[in-house]
Amino acid sequence: MSTGTGEVDAATVAELHQLYGRQSHFIDGGDTSGWAQTFTDDGEFHSPSYPEPVAGTDALIAFAERFHAAARAANEVHRHVITNLAIDEPGEGAATVRAYLQIVATSIGGESRLVRMTTFTDRVVRVGDRWRIARRDVRRDDAQ
Amino acid sequence: MSTGTGEVDAATVAELHQLYGRQSHFIDGGDTSGWAQTFTDDGEFHSPSYPEPVAGTDALIAFAERFHAAARAANEVHRHVITNLAIDEPGEGAATVRAYLQIVATSIGGESRLVRMTTFTDRVVRVGDRWRIARRDVRRDDAQ
Amino acid sequence: MSTGTGEVDAATVAELHQLYGRQSHFIDGGDTSGWAQTFTDDGEFHSPSYPEPVAGTDALIAFAERFHAAARAANEVHRHVITNLAIDEPGEGAATVRAYLQIVATSIGGESRLVRMTTFTDRVVRVGDRWRIARRDVRRDDAQ
Repeated sequence: MSTGTGEVDAATVAELHQLYGRQSHFIDGGDTSGWAQTFTDDGEFHSPSYPEPVAGTDALIAFAERFHAAARAANEVHRHVITNLAIDEPGEGAATVRAYLQIVATSIGGESRLVRMTTFTDRVVRVGDRWRIARRDVRRDDAQ
Repeated sequence: MSTGTGEVDAATVAELHQLYGRQSHFIDGGDTSGWAQTFTDDGEFHSPSYPEPVAGTDALIAFAERFHAAARAANEVHRHVITNLAIDEPGEGAATVRAYLQIVATSIGGESRLVRMTTFTDRVVRVGDRWRIARRDVRRDDAQ
Repeated sequence: MSTGTGEVDAATVAELHQLYGRQSHFIDGGDTSGWAQTFTDDGEFHSPSYPEPVAGTDALIAFAERFHAAARAANEVHRHVITNLAIDEPGEGAATVRAYLQIVATSIGGESRLVRMTTFTDRVVRVGDRWRIARRDVRRDDAQ
């Protein structure tokens, strides 16, 4: 539908904005299964913040549970603030999405702070009537 | 048009992104009437940051005027940074919108800082050719 | 298609969200030519952070190269976080876009911080099958 510089159709833009709009609410709110299902069944999450990639629904759920438990143990609420979505659609039913992702933490009864600035590049695929993430690669700005 | 997990049509996504894109410019820029009119005539604003709910256009205008005046009195500019829109449309002409809302304050001649991380859940309804907010519930991350 | 308060069509909203989604990746990632081409050939960039306006593709490329080089020299990665897009379309093939723009800097091996909160107003025009920025005016919150 589009090359790297061409336009992506409006329906795809809307659907992917919805995917990313919803995704952070899942993990930040503790809906770990909902978060895992934004990935494909064998979806992969690669981040330098963690020792090894996470792959597959069960492992993604366990990863999200650890993330959410760590925030609770620190008496904090963590938010994944996603901005600057850039969608490129090299083929039918597959797209690349790049975005900025800020981690913001708030202490219960205390202050909010920007913990980390990262970017990610996702390969997304259409599965049935939904877009799902086949692979995410996170890059930390402090590590470049 | 959609269930809680299904897709919302592209026109609705675009219209609601426009509503939220515009809304903060109104209150942050001092267009208090414009901000009040993003709510329905009897729209309600519920926030733990304020002692009681605000309901109806006149009260919403007065609320926005107090907000803007307080920022000016502090020699600051305040911004409502809205991200992570998640739209669910349970029925025709009605939708639920969740989002992240950061309050960023800048001192004139000074620094910018993240004042507060909040989320909100809005019930929005279509009135004529516009979406308007029937009820907003704000949640503060420091209060969970 | 729309007045200042009316709705802009979904295709235009999607295309402009894509323009702004992509734009920051260009300058922050060092693709200075890509960034310059988000402006028209004689596009203008006006910002109080710089002594004079920048106009035309060659000057925009040189400006972006200085921006990127300054960040590298400071051993930092800079990000232009764009939110709160408000699109108004006064005529066919021309629109006004307002947005919030945060500059976030991260030291390599160090912390991330909010450097500056700004807003901008762009006049955009449709050139062929693409929207491009004819003129950007940046406003700094610390200067109001």
